[in-house]
Amino acid sequence: MKNLIWGIDIGGTNTVCGLVDENGIIQNEFILKTQDYAEAADLVSALCSKMNEVVKAVTDCCVKGIGIGAPNGNYYNGCIEFAPNLKWKGKIPLAEMFKANCKVPVVLTNDANAAALGEMYFGAAKGLSDFILITLGTGLGSGIVCNGKMVYGHDGFAGEMGHMCAIEGGRKCSCGLTGCLEEYVSARGIIQTMKELMNDPSLSEKPSFYRRDFDMLDINREAKAGDKTAIKAYEISGTILGHNLATAVTFTSPSHIFLFGGIANAGDLIIKPAEKAMNERLLPVFRNKVKLEQSQLLGKNAAVLGAAALLLNDVKS
Amino acid sequence: MKNLIWGIDIGGTNTVCGLVDENGIIQNEFILKTQDYAEAADLVSALCSKMNEVVKAVTDCCVKGIGIGAPNGNYYNGCIEFAPNLKWKGKIPLAEMFKANCKVPVVLTNDANAAALGEMYFGAAKGLSDFILITLGTGLGSGIVCNGKMVYGHDGFAGEMGHMCAIEGGRKCSCGLTGCLEEYVSARGIIQTMKELMNDPSLSEKPSFYRRDFDMLDINREAKAGDKTAIKAYEISGTILGHNLATAVTFTSPSHIFLFGGIANAGDLIIKPAEKAMNERLLPVFRNKVKLEQSQLLGKNAAVLGAAALLLNDVKS
Repeated sequence: MKNLIWGIDIGGTNTVCGLVDENGIIQNEFILKTQDYAEAADLVSALCSKMNEVVKAVTDCCVKGIGIGAPNGNYYNGCIEFAPNLKWKGKIPLAEMFKANCKVPVVLTNDANAAALGEMYFGAAKGLSDFILITLGTGLGSGIVCNGKMVYGHDGFAGEMGHMCAIEGGRKCSCGLTGCLEEYVSARGIIQTMKELMNDPSLSEKPSFYRRDFDMLDINREAKAGDKTAIKAYEISGTILGHNLATAVTFTSPSHIFLFGGIANAGDLIIKPAEKAMNERLLPVFRNKVKLEQSQLLGKNAAVLGAAALLLNDVKS
Repeated sequence: MKNLIWGIDIGGTNTVCGLVDENGIIQNEFILKTQDYAEAADLVSALCSKMNEVVKAVTDCCVKGIGIGAPNGNYYNGCIEFAPNLKWKGKIPLAEMFKANCKVPVVLTNDANAAALGEMYFGAAKGLSDFILITLGTGLGSGIVCNGKMVYGHDGFAGEMGHMCAIEGGRKCSCGLTGCLEEYVSARGIIQTMKELMNDPSLSEKPSFYRRDFDMLDINREAKAGDKTAIKAYEISGTILGHNLATAVTFTSPSHIFLFGGIANAGDLIIKPAEKAMNERLLPVFRNKVKLEQSQLLGKNAAVLGAAALLLNDVKS
């Protein structure tokens, strides 16, 4: 009989759900629109009935439980706590809601921690004891593993690297602080940097989207085509990332740092300047030892794999 | 029969050695001058013969092993690696040398990690799973505990918070980098800040040591007597410490941060500004939750206790 785990990735737009086996193969994936559900309880109920329906059709399997990755998901209490990009407000006991419906073990964490566990069980971090995974999307998230265990901190909120102060007195962040790392190293951050670069009157070459709205896809395409301003935007972002990764290394001395999410697809455009900046800021004892790499789960449904790995990890530890 | 552990604290000047019981009571303490020994092997041999002599006189005891705290001590390989303030150069297999002499389990780590373990077994961190201890002396060291375990990192060098970049393009550090935290938050750092403050031509009140050499004891005495410049020096140092502790919290979300070492004796002179600055830089989810406190081992021989706790920890884990 095959052991399977439900991996659920709850995002602001979509909720993706899939059955994951111990080799990280996803089957029977389905998607619900998160925003269609006025209350979290409605989404849970819709997911559980769909999950029941799916499982009935799978022969010879045993569902060991449910792993969930969600914004501001707290591992310790199983609650989503005050997630800014979900419309359900306050503290929502999501794990309890699933347990009441499905009668199997349920574990919840935030999306970056889930991605780090996904990398550890099914990606490039297999067998590593000390590593960090950085998710680079609209914002910046991080999952930190030390001594082979996810670091949740005393309250479940460890790994908020997006809100470390990267630039003294810098850009205002949506969290209320200033100079937060994710205001520079994220889609939002790189777009802002690109705007600032294009406002420079000395700008000689004009990217194709000069004088119109643009997004990360535009910047990425132009950078790959050799546009100097777009390349510069990645360089600035990569350098700030590298300086802050040096701080991370000084703390927990990981062997590897993995970059995950949309921006990580840019590869060397961001990794090369980040690596250079990181090594410039490191003590000799750390220099050129830390491997900065793309996640091996890019392109796969890593969030679902990560959520499933969360349960796998909980059962094993 | 009483179980005892040798705790050995190797410093640049003195090597302190004591027998520690499971309640953290130290007995039969003795001191050798580290600098009297041209080679590490000579110190090890002198220590071991003195230790043998001492143990013979203790009735009804069992020595379970030796814990050692030393600058740049690496837990994984038992070596002192390139310690700048010891005259023995290169990589010294200290744990092996002790094992060969004493035939008991031997564990080595750096002084800050040993102090953190001392706090965990015998001080204010009893029962805590996630905390950080900062040692404030000539330099700044740190020991990080996550999930109830000391974080050594993949290579044994985690917890080098003294060399995180605190001030972009700031003071030149002895490590070769610039703006390192310990150039601002340490005896060396506060003395330098005091010198800069006294060079300000607008300085109205003159501390008693104006126009002569001074040390931390002078600054501390003047600050406690109400000298505004000396208080300001602590404030500047505390504020920089607080900003960087906010970064630390963002990483590992500890419940407590303990300050240890000479500078920590200044108490509120440094803790109050540090606490204020830390909370100003924290996400709302962390704000006013992290306890910043003096170590409970101040005044005790914490380095020896910590070294003994290291072995206790190794046996238990």
